[in-house]
Amino acid sequence: DIPRPSSEDLQSRPRLLLSSSPSSQAESSSMAQRRFYPSHQLSKWSVDPRTILLIQKPRDERTAVAMGDLLRFLTSAFPHLRIIVEPHTAQDHPEFEDLIITAESDTALLPLHTDLVITLGGDGTILHTSNLFGDGACPPVISFSMGSLGFLLPFHINDMETVLQNALSGPVSVLQRMRLSCTPLDASGEILKCSMRVGESGWQVMNEVAIHRGRHPHLNVVDAYFDGEHLTEAVADGILLSTPTGSTAYSLSAGGPISHPDTDAFLLTPIAPRSLSFRTVILPGRGVVQLKISPLARSPAELSFDGREVCLLNPDESVIITKSPFPIPCIERGDGGAASGWVKDINSLLQFNTGFRNKSVMGHGIS
Amino acid sequence: DIPRPSSEDLQSRPRLLLSSSPSSQAESSSMAQRRFYPSHQLSKWSVDPRTILLIQKPRDERTAVAMGDLLRFLTSAFPHLRIIVEPHTAQDHPEFEDLIITAESDTALLPLHTDLVITLGGDGTILHTSNLFGDGACPPVISFSMGSLGFLLPFHINDMETVLQNALSGPVSVLQRMRLSCTPLDASGEILKCSMRVGESGWQVMNEVAIHRGRHPHLNVVDAYFDGEHLTEAVADGILLSTPTGSTAYSLSAGGPISHPDTDAFLLTPIAPRSLSFRTVILPGRGVVQLKISPLARSPAELSFDGREVCLLNPDESVIITKSPFPIPCIERGDGGAASGWVKDINSLLQFNTGFRNKSVMGHGIS
Amino acid sequence: DIPRPSSEDLQSRPRLLLSSSPSSQAESSSMAQRRFYPSHQLSKWSVDPRTILLIQKPRDERTAVAMGDLLRFLTSAFPHLRIIVEPHTAQDHPEFEDLIITAESDTALLPLHTDLVITLGGDGTILHTSNLFGDGACPPVISFSMGSLGFLLPFHINDMETVLQNALSGPVSVLQRMRLSCTPLDASGEILKCSMRVGESGWQVMNEVAIHRGRHPHLNVVDAYFDGEHLTEAVADGILLSTPTGSTAYSLSAGGPISHPDTDAFLLTPIAPRSLSFRTVILPGRGVVQLKISPLARSPAELSFDGREVCLLNPDESVIITKSPFPIPCIERGDGGAASGWVKDINSLLQFNTGFRNKSVMGHGIS
Amino acid sequence: DIPRPSSEDLQSRPRLLLSSSPSSQAESSSMAQRRFYPSHQLSKWSVDPRTILLIQKPRDERTAVAMGDLLRFLTSAFPHLRIIVEPHTAQDHPEFEDLIITAESDTALLPLHTDLVITLGGDGTILHTSNLFGDGACPPVISFSMGSLGFLLPFHINDMETVLQNALSGPVSVLQRMRLSCTPLDASGEILKCSMRVGESGWQVMNEVAIHRGRHPHLNVVDAYFDGEHLTEAVADGILLSTPTGSTAYSLSAGGPISHPDTDAFLLTPIAPRSLSFRTVILPGRGVVQLKISPLARSPAELSFDGREVCLLNPDESVIITKSPFPIPCIERGDGGAASGWVKDINSLLQFNTGFRNKSVMGHGIS
Ligand SMILES: NC(=O)C1=CN([C@@H]2O[C@H](COP(=O)(O)OP(=O)(O)OC[C@H]3O[C@@H](n4cnc5c(N)ncnc54)[C@H](O)[C@@H]3O)[C@@H](O)[C@H]2O)C=CC1
Ligand SMILES: NC(=O)C1=CN([C@@H]2O[C@H](COP(=O)(O)OP(=O)(O)OC[C@H]3O[C@@H](n4cnc5c(N)ncnc54)[C@H](O)[C@@H]3O)[C@@H](O)[C@H]2O)C=CC1
Ligand SMILES: NC(=O)C1=CN([C@@H]2O[C@H](COP(=O)(O)OP(=O)(O)OC[C@H]3O[C@@H](n4cnc5c(N)ncnc54)[C@H](O)[C@@H]3O)[C@@H](O)[C@H]2O)C=CC1
Ligand SMILES: NC(=O)C1=CN([C@@H]2O[C@H](COP(=O)(O)OP(=O)(O)OC[C@H]3O[C@@H](n4cnc5c(N)ncnc54)[C@H](O)[C@@H]3O)[C@@H](O)[C@H]2O)C=CC1
Repeated sequence: DIPRPSSEDLQSRPRLLLSSSPSSQAESSSMAQRRFYPSHQLSKWSVDPRTILLIQKPRDERTAVAMGDLLRFLTSAFPHLRIIVEPHTAQDHPEFEDLIITAESDTALLPLHTDLVITLGGDGTILHTSNLFGDGACPPVISFSMGSLGFLLPFHINDMETVLQNALSGPVSVLQRMRLSCTPLDASGEILKCSMRVGESGWQVMNEVAIHRGRHPHLNVVDAYFDGEHLTEAVADGILLSTPTGSTAYSLSAGGPISHPDTDAFLLTPIAPRSLSFRTVILPGRGVVQLKISPLARSPAELSFDGREVCLLNPDESVIITKSPFPIPCIERGDGGAASGWVKDINSLLQFNTGFRNKSVMGHGIS
Repeated sequence: DIPRPSSEDLQSRPRLLLSSSPSSQAESSSMAQRRFYPSHQLSKWSVDPRTILLIQKPRDERTAVAMGDLLRFLTSAFPHLRIIVEPHTAQDHPEFEDLIITAESDTALLPLHTDLVITLGGDGTILHTSNLFGDGACPPVISFSMGSLGFLLPFHINDMETVLQNALSGPVSVLQRMRLSCTPLDASGEILKCSMRVGESGWQVMNEVAIHRGRHPHLNVVDAYFDGEHLTEAVADGILLSTPTGSTAYSLSAGGPISHPDTDAFLLTPIAPRSLSFRTVILPGRGVVQLKISPLARSPAELSFDGREVCLLNPDESVIITKSPFPIPCIERGDGGAASGWVKDINSLLQFNTGFRNKSVMGHGIS
Repeated sequence: DIPRPSSEDLQSRPRLLLSSSPSSQAESSSMAQRRFYPSHQLSKWSVDPRTILLIQKPRDERTAVAMGDLLRFLTSAFPHLRIIVEPHTAQDHPEFEDLIITAESDTALLPLHTDLVITLGGDGTILHTSNLFGDGACPPVISFSMGSLGFLLPFHINDMETVLQNALSGPVSVLQRMRLSCTPLDASGEILKCSMRVGESGWQVMNEVAIHRGRHPHLNVVDAYFDGEHLTEAVADGILLSTPTGSTAYSLSAGGPISHPDTDAFLLTPIAPRSLSFRTVILPGRGVVQLKISPLARSPAELSFDGREVCLLNPDESVIITKSPFPIPCIERGDGGAASGWVKDINSLLQFNTGFRNKSVMGHGIS
Repeated sequence: DIPRPSSEDLQSRPRLLLSSSPSSQAESSSMAQRRFYPSHQLSKWSVDPRTILLIQKPRDERTAVAMGDLLRFLTSAFPHLRIIVEPHTAQDHPEFEDLIITAESDTALLPLHTDLVITLGGDGTILHTSNLFGDGACPPVISFSMGSLGFLLPFHINDMETVLQNALSGPVSVLQRMRLSCTPLDASGEILKCSMRVGESGWQVMNEVAIHRGRHPHLNVVDAYFDGEHLTEAVADGILLSTPTGSTAYSLSAGGPISHPDTDAFLLTPIAPRSLSFRTVILPGRGVVQLKISPLARSPAELSFDGREVCLLNPDESVIITKSPFPIPCIERGDGGAASGWVKDINSLLQFNTGFRNKSVMGHGIS
């Protein structure tokens, strides 16, 4: 189990330091160039962690092997680090005796103890990490992909040693990914009992809040409010409120636009709405959204956070959503900046706006 | 013509004063209510203008009549006000001898002289106003609709007297509508000659920048860059970069989402793209967008600002776009706040997500 | 229970007679007019039924009252008619002692016995009727709406007496609505056991076949084949194969186009597909479609016919679909023809292409 | 010039013979297999042409070279064939002295003289061919691509000799591609003068009829009628009526669905409509569509057939469209059938429903 920290311990712990601002780019002479220095840089952090949490995709042979490599590397290269793992990881690697094992009951303590998270797996592994830090702040996360890189997976496992050497010895580029702070409410406005304990600051969600008819054959009816005003009534399979990060997840499938992760906005998108005239609505991140099961609904609906069902909502029950004060600091490849990674990803991963193969469309003159 | 201001004159002129912050709302007890006070209020301004610019839709009988009423009201109720009008308005109303008439050559002086704009007409009249103040700051605008209210038309002409009495005597609610600052560039990055003189701070645009094949029968090819990186190549009829305000204009027709006017974001949407996989892209307002005619394009393309063609762009010519430092301060109905007006408008004007008439879809049990 | 018919009985029964072809329209002189006689007419049938099946929406007060009126009218105006009802209708109306009551076990006999169906309720009531005749031919159907008219509801209950007088005494206009003939198959190509017995000619479906992840949180994977060739792999919440009639039901919600009911085509539309480049595919009615759960799917999927779940499909299980030889003959308002009813319906019910309220968009010159 | 044919000549000319029906496929035992024999085959034709028309993309080096090869091959392998070419082809190849050259004034005679067309170039070359036979029947067309194969380009130029040897000696597979028969009308219903002479049977169009605002900055307004009934009013950049073949051309760019070429249907799709609720409408091929510029329109609109502007339409002018009695018989690869070619094309050319690169979406368990 995680040893409870003394208050001293807490004070003396090394903390993340926000380093000085990004080095400005050299300016060149022409108008176009002059205006072209990226107006934005990822913020730079110095990470000097004492305790690292390692998260892996479960029941996956390749990831388990990679976890062995990671453990060997960390314990030999950074022997002073304390390493926390989930029980299934500890079980797989009995040869590492110093691992601190999280118990279910401890997860609430994780934020206090963890200075850095390293994940091995896929997007689901990061969503799981976000969920572990669902009731509050989340430390910086370095994510390794086992296969192709991804939106949430900037590093490849093959580069693990170099990436970690660099990250633990110098400043890193950090993208603060917005999360949503979500509070399920009963008909009288009190916090609803769900599969997890939702506290004062709600539950933090990285991709989206989804309300879906699920096993119920009939259309559901959800009332959406913005800043307390009735925005619309969705008669549909379901409805999503997504972060910019989540715009490339379920929201995209439901027909929503693609958002740069830095945009300060929510995306409200219905799933299979019984309406010809429903479009995604972009709402400013400063606002309050409420999604409430309508009294007209014939059945309860499933409420999911990042793809995990957390409870059923009955008519008049709702979830209230604001921008979370606890984003996820994601460590990114330093070579390009946020835009860079993202632009590359929407083109290579999503195959955004892939040209037709018949090149004549592009005026090569073959047509 | 507009009399050139002396420097004294400029200093002594009454200016717009930002009044104290919005009165906080009473809080109520339940969780839902507590979190529900709108997190945002329109800012409140005190308008004490010395000179007012009146803009009207030309060649329209009803608007001309309303302009007569407006002139009569202003000259009798606020005899000290100086009134500026466009030549066609002055021509229509020879009985008002004190009207200051803008000449083509004077429009550059308008920003210095105008403390408030009143428009009579439709959305096009406000776009025209924005264009008059296209090279810099724009004073607050009160817009009267001649028929149904609209996104850009918060007041009805029938309420003209009351609205103006209130606006000129107390604080008003102002929505700062983002504009885009646009600079057309030639292949070598120098500012391109267009139908208007674009200065250092570009030309300010309220709805969108559009590039379109226009009279040319063939698909055009446009390269889109974000913060200097190549985002995508659009083989299409055209492409739009829109403000949140413009999201309900051309961008919507092209399939884009609906954005709250307060969102700090751009919407990049193609028109009839030859691709199955092009979606609107939401970009953060802090970035730099460049749209450049591809060397693969077979013909030049029309560049339009808010629906006005400003020049033809040849291959390798481009337009570079950032968030303008000169938004338009739009005076709104005070009774509800920005959200309020907007929520009402998307539901009543756009018929957003209109339910099917067959009410059984909503589970009334008729089906 | 329904008395088993003797073979004589079957032969002597009055049958539906296809009357002579539609009266040709008068031609007028101009080119436009000359080419404008509708190229299509609803076919005209003479209905001289001996046995009528009455179907009503259950548990609905208004419909129950209307059913009383209908029974009184039929028994007094057409005393020789035999009337078949479902048990719940018989229970509600003990005063009508001659009603023939269908038992669950009899439904297979219904097609032999029924010359005409009258439904009271909503679209769901007609879907229920189609399902009663799911394993083969369906007699003509007259549908009464209890509220607003609808795609499948051409007549209003208030006009019941006139409509029936006319229908039972003269030729009626009939729209043959395509159905799909569906056969669920196991991995080895044998017919799968489902909630109903599917025979040689499959199960007839009026709106659509749907495959959906339902209660399973993860995306499903479905392989779609056309005429035995692999068309595509849908990674999605689900996938629909819809008739033209069904194009305004679930398919529309999933983003599909609107089809005229006369089109000889299927519509293949995914629900929330994880792809930017999936569009509805229109397939000719002469083809064979197979939807098969992919071996890559992580969970079974729900198979539904017209909104009713009929079984779970596991990986490698599938449903095979062709145009049914048993369409539904729907009796339509005679005053306009199929197009007429349909054109009115998409405009009034679906609010298809509703203009924005701001009339200036239409060039009225207010803008 | 083309020698005028004597009536004898016409009678003695070899004609296309419709060969016996397609060989039936072997049936296999399981249910799935049994039902899986494609219900459709391309029809098989025997082509024994006397005169061949060769069409090539102009001003293209590679195509000019290929034309030389084609001419050499045809004149040596089939010395009895008469060869017709366009003037620019004859000019490029003065060494072939027997070529019959079409003059502008002769194009009306082409249908009488041509037994087969061979095209070298892109889709545009086939559209040009269709246009040459725009006022009536079109002979079979073999199309060679100079680069990648395409929807309308089943053969590669590298296989030219084999393809032609086979085609001229045995039965070929023919896909009859629907064309639209289009008649522009003035306000009084008389045929409108356009860039080409439209006769009794209208002008035949292969992809689509387009009405577009073109150079006019303002939205146009078009009324669409089906079978004489007012279907809808499109306030938009433009509107398209497309064949199934054209569904992958402009219609797709405007957001329309993808149709199998065999579907007997039209697709009505607006371009950038000012409406949230406009979807593509699928209409049965048996109907009559009329697109009429609304009296509300502020400017004329461009009418285009297959991408070629043919005239301007003023308010109250229109185009009336039916299925053409003159489809284009396209010779297809025999190895697979129509579906086969088409299924391959939408997947390889359009990149229809391309999976995201991150394979974890498909449940490979990497996520
Ligand atoms: N925004 C757009 O997508 C526009 C599309 N077009 C299309 O272009 C056609 C005219 O073609 P071109 O003269 O070559 O003009 P073009 O040179 O502008 O090229 C149009 C492109 O569409 C492709 N294309 C044509 N017919 C097709 C079909 N049936 N299926 C798939 N792809 C097809 C061609 O290969 C070419 O790449 C028109 O019939 C219209 O469909 C025309 C204008 C705008
Ligand atoms: N997200 C969605 O849009 C969903 C739609 N459905 C549809 O519901 C149908 C079953 O209907 P119910 O049992 O009444 O379920 P229901 O009570 O959930 O209602 C479905 C709604 O669709 C309407 N509808 C049904 N067929 C229609 C048609 N052909 N054209 C236009 N509207 C139509 C009905 O009037 C009703 O309002 C299914 O066949 C499916 O098409 C089912 C599930 C989800
Ligand atoms: N296919 C389309 O939808 C097209 C749209 N436009 C839009 O027209 C604008 C120019 O307007 P006008 O000079 O009046 O041209 P216009 O007279 O052609 O009308 C455009 C229509 O858009 C409406 N509109 C303008 N701005 C709007 C906004 N922000 N939100 C909602 N509706 C709005 C106007 O009320 C008018 O009805 C351009 O900025 C562009 O957005 C221009 C060309 C084509
Ligand atoms: N029809 C759909 O598209 C559905 C999508 N989902 C999404 O799945 C997420 C949960 O993920 P898993 O537990 O891994 O479920 P999962 O195993 O069903 O996979 C969801 C897929 O979405 C991808 N993904 C997740 N977040 C992403 C992001 N921000 N950007 C791009 N791709 C992303 C994952 O890589 C995975 O391929 C939910 O948050 C929801 O967004 C969930 C249900 C249906």
